[in-house]
Amino acid sequence: MYRAPLSEIAFTLTHIAGLEDLRSLPGVEDLSDDLVEAILTEAGRFAAEEIAPLNAIADRTGTPFRDGAVTLPPAWRDLYHRWIEGGWNGLAADPAHGGQGLPLMLYIATLEMWNSGSMAFSICPTLTVGAIEALEKHASEDLKATYLDKLVSGAWTGTMNLTEPQAGSDLNALTARAERQPDGTYRIFGQKIYISYGEHDMTDNIVHLVLARLPDAPAGTRGISLFLVPKVLVNPDGSLGARNDVRCAGVEHKMGIHGSPTCTMIYGDAGGAIGWLVGEENRGLACMFTMMNNARLAVGVQGLGVAERAFQKALAYALDRRQGKAPGDDSKGMSLIAAHPDVKRMLLGMQARTQVSRAICYACAHAIDRARLSTTAEDRAFWTDRAGLLTPLAKAISTDFGVESASLGIQIHGGMGFIEETGAAQHLRDVRISTIYEGTNGIQAIDLIQRKLPLAGGAHVKGFIDELSALAAAAAAHSDTGVKALSDPLSMAIADLGRATDWMMEAQAGGRVAEALAGATPYLRLTGLTFGAALLTKGALVEDRDPKATAHRRLLARFFAETLLVEVGGLARDVMGAADSILSYDPMALAS
Amino acid sequence: MYRAPLSEIAFTLTHIAGLEDLRSLPGVEDLSDDLVEAILTEAGRFAAEEIAPLNAIADRTGTPFRDGAVTLPPAWRDLYHRWIEGGWNGLAADPAHGGQGLPLMLYIATLEMWNSGSMAFSICPTLTVGAIEALEKHASEDLKATYLDKLVSGAWTGTMNLTEPQAGSDLNALTARAERQPDGTYRIFGQKIYISYGEHDMTDNIVHLVLARLPDAPAGTRGISLFLVPKVLVNPDGSLGARNDVRCAGVEHKMGIHGSPTCTMIYGDAGGAIGWLVGEENRGLACMFTMMNNARLAVGVQGLGVAERAFQKALAYALDRRQGKAPGDDSKGMSLIAAHPDVKRMLLGMQARTQVSRAICYACAHAIDRARLSTTAEDRAFWTDRAGLLTPLAKAISTDFGVESASLGIQIHGGMGFIEETGAAQHLRDVRISTIYEGTNGIQAIDLIQRKLPLAGGAHVKGFIDELSALAAAAAAHSDTGVKALSDPLSMAIADLGRATDWMMEAQAGGRVAEALAGATPYLRLTGLTFGAALLTKGALVEDRDPKATAHRRLLARFFAETLLVEVGGLARDVMGAADSILSYDPMALAS
Repeated sequence: MYRAPLSEIAFTLTHIAGLEDLRSLPGVEDLSDDLVEAILTEAGRFAAEEIAPLNAIADRTGTPFRDGAVTLPPAWRDLYHRWIEGGWNGLAADPAHGGQGLPLMLYIATLEMWNSGSMAFSICPTLTVGAIEALEKHASEDLKATYLDKLVSGAWTGTMNLTEPQAGSDLNALTARAERQPDGTYRIFGQKIYISYGEHDMTDNIVHLVLARLPDAPAGTRGISLFLVPKVLVNPDGSLGARNDVRCAGVEHKMGIHGSPTCTMIYGDAGGAIGWLVGEENRGLACMFTMMNNARLAVGVQGLGVAERAFQKALAYALDRRQGKAPGDDSKGMSLIAAHPDVKRMLLGMQARTQVSRAICYACAHAIDRARLSTTAEDRAFWTDRAGLLTPLAKAISTDFGVESASLGIQIHGGMGFIEETGAAQHLRDVRISTIYEGTNGIQAIDLIQRKLPLAGGAHVKGFIDELSALAAAAAAHSDTGVKALSDPLSMAIADLGRATDWMMEAQAGGRVAEALAGATPYLRLTGLTFGAALLTKGALVEDRDPKATAHRRLLARFFAETLLVEVGGLARDVMGAADSILSYDPMALAS
Repeated sequence: MYRAPLSEIAFTLTHIAGLEDLRSLPGVEDLSDDLVEAILTEAGRFAAEEIAPLNAIADRTGTPFRDGAVTLPPAWRDLYHRWIEGGWNGLAADPAHGGQGLPLMLYIATLEMWNSGSMAFSICPTLTVGAIEALEKHASEDLKATYLDKLVSGAWTGTMNLTEPQAGSDLNALTARAERQPDGTYRIFGQKIYISYGEHDMTDNIVHLVLARLPDAPAGTRGISLFLVPKVLVNPDGSLGARNDVRCAGVEHKMGIHGSPTCTMIYGDAGGAIGWLVGEENRGLACMFTMMNNARLAVGVQGLGVAERAFQKALAYALDRRQGKAPGDDSKGMSLIAAHPDVKRMLLGMQARTQVSRAICYACAHAIDRARLSTTAEDRAFWTDRAGLLTPLAKAISTDFGVESASLGIQIHGGMGFIEETGAAQHLRDVRISTIYEGTNGIQAIDLIQRKLPLAGGAHVKGFIDELSALAAAAAAHSDTGVKALSDPLSMAIADLGRATDWMMEAQAGGRVAEALAGATPYLRLTGLTFGAALLTKGALVEDRDPKATAHRRLLARFFAETLLVEVGGLARDVMGAADSILSYDPMALAS
């Protein structure tokens, strides 16, 4: 069914993403190898034995909605309670509120496994963790005292309320209203859509974080404030009081993640939902970005987790199903389809994509940990920039690869892949949303070129590219001929990345914004493929204790260079060459 | 909803695929422009007004199965009867049996529109047409007299029964049995799976074509015979008699094409289903290939039809939905998303892929028409080879592009794309099967390198590449600078195609079969992209009456060259460079 890839996870954390770096930083000194191993092992067991078997069930039953209530599969509720009893919800949260204060890297590694178990299930705690982060950073002590312990333990869950029908990618268009009250609270009015786990029956309270506008707020995103709106009001003694004026008006009928209720939420139908300000008035977007950035990485991890699960399923099928005769197979009868070269190509393609996603997501988490734990302003600035650079890559590459891998998984299953009972199709249906929410991958590409390339006046990305070159040089100097051979294609790709980056920066510096935007998507893929190949190369430089694992990592790195990194030359031509034709396209003229 | 792209269809038939060539051939002299236009216009109207509105309904209701019977949506039955009353089923069939004897090219153009209307609906007549072709070519006069008129009119439908649980891609493994009877009939026993429209309530009879083995048949595919097995036996006077011993045991629960019942069929549970031999004993595979080759093109047209529908839907949404501010938009309020460069890229990406699929599918149909109608043995041999070369390209490229386009269509819709009521998700769920059935696209790639590259001792593909070079040369000599600019990238791609083709032929001639197989999939894509770019260039050479249409075709050709044809360099490196790592991968060693 699903077996947690513990050795790959541990290897990636340690030898590729930089877990070792953290141990010299305050608060992480005590992170022993034994503790890491114990956490990963138990998370792997829980994901494989407890979560994974329920993934298909929730896909079939969905989350029926009736009279404002959303009913989750009973098995789902039990699972959630076993999961929070394990303390998994507060892994990276502040110990002051009952968390374990562990590095984000470890949380992200467990999050991969929860998502392999069930993406639809994992969405709920992912949102709670986002709410915890926003409250830890921005909420008043009173709010923290009332809500954080419950959120950290998982007794209550959190949601993120941004989207309105007219305001999806563009938060300028938000119209939800907030009115100040004499007692310092606010009344919230408005409709929010696409609210994951906005209503459910797993816990007795839900803590909504809601973006809304004050009556005197400036237009645009500088006039948005963030409010905490509990489903059930909390009495001064911490017990639950009356229902707040917020209700679920319906759930969506979606292509996938059927186990995750996607709710329309109505605030203030009966006089106004009572809300509390988080952070300062009109500074809600900054608070929301705290949630959103980590949520973007978390969505990348959805792509990763589903891809790993899809790969394992496809591999198991390919090692069971027999059809035709593979070249060189002299045995009687049909060959395993895993022996056919084209199926090998697909399996390797899934596994190489998955390993690249893992390396990029973990490296992004590492940068966030370094930024949070750094002891100097210089370090903090550098790692904050690095986290900023890697977040759109982790989100977009891992989700694009997740979709590609899930689709390859269906293909390997042949006709069986199209039959729902097989389960391969669910992975594609589930993961398909990941390239869309938390900022479409197109928006990640815009973020990369408009906000991340200019970091440190452009010096940050130059330094990043230099680091990749250092990996290519290390490969060139390696004694193993297979590792050495990784150097040339990587260096070629880095040269293409350098050229495309210069072009992007010049276009933007020269005010040719539209031209830069036209090339943003292939630029992101080019950057992600090159970075991914560099990370696989970094792993290939290491001799693992297990020589078979070392050989396989080197094989994957080589395969990735030969079949995916080769896209880079064409992508660079696309970035630098297609803007004219794209911008001269007038869809309105033709539709008329 | 859907508007038939009549001018693109007519332009592609005439100026790209070669409809004009046919008019000098016997039986097609009378094909006037007016007739072509009348057929396309009425088909477009029917597809848009009658079929398209029912596509989502059938997706929701599916095809419930109970007690051996499959119930289609009532609207579906009415639609089918209006459709056959229009005479559409027999468009390309022999006039001797009530067909209209028109070129396959025209049938394929209408088939595109039926599939844009509803892929799930169109599968039924597609299979009937396949059965008609097999019977026209291989059946005895008695069988023809009994069945062809009914199939051509559409009063009865046809099916194609190949797959068994253990025999999917590999027909060697077939075990369905046939026993000779003294009266010249046969008794058929066995189970077949994945039988589209194997049972339904639209017509009062269904004509199954079934592959089975005689008791004394040789092993492998040389021991397979084809039988006609009617659902209801036909009396000598043509009236319907008793039910035959064939029943539907269930329908599959699939990712998409919910309106098309995918049946498990049981033959001979009660003493043996009565069947009639089609063609000769043990020569069933040759008969089946008649059906299968045209079915492969028809599946390519499914990819095309769904892609066109998905494009129109995405364009309409992009011209309605407003978010953010596109560069250069000085108006008040939010911009149409169609004005954002990255959305333009996605729209153009969908349309360019769709137009390439159309051009390749129509060119393939043209080759089949030329082969069938040619008056010299030399011509027939050439066009038979050409049809053989283009069939795997039409099938695999158009379905891969169909999946890519449908996925882009979801992406353009943002969060709405994931909501089933929007309809964008259905297109991806429907079209996802098209890369799998009628031979997976991996099998198309193997067919291309193992059966098609060696045609005419390798001379056929060389000549094909020379034709592409002639188009590049024509572009270079064109007065329009935009058209001229198409030449260099096309020539570069042709050079890559030439190198990869030489490598493939040498690998296979040198017995390095596994190496060739490892590169088959990227080789097919390389060939398809280059051929597609050449066909768009061919269209760009033409001045249409409508200057806006001419300019847009040239823009699409340029966009395709700049964003998709650029893959070709990397694909050539993949074809020629990745075999070692793929073949050294041992999935069994790692799974243990």
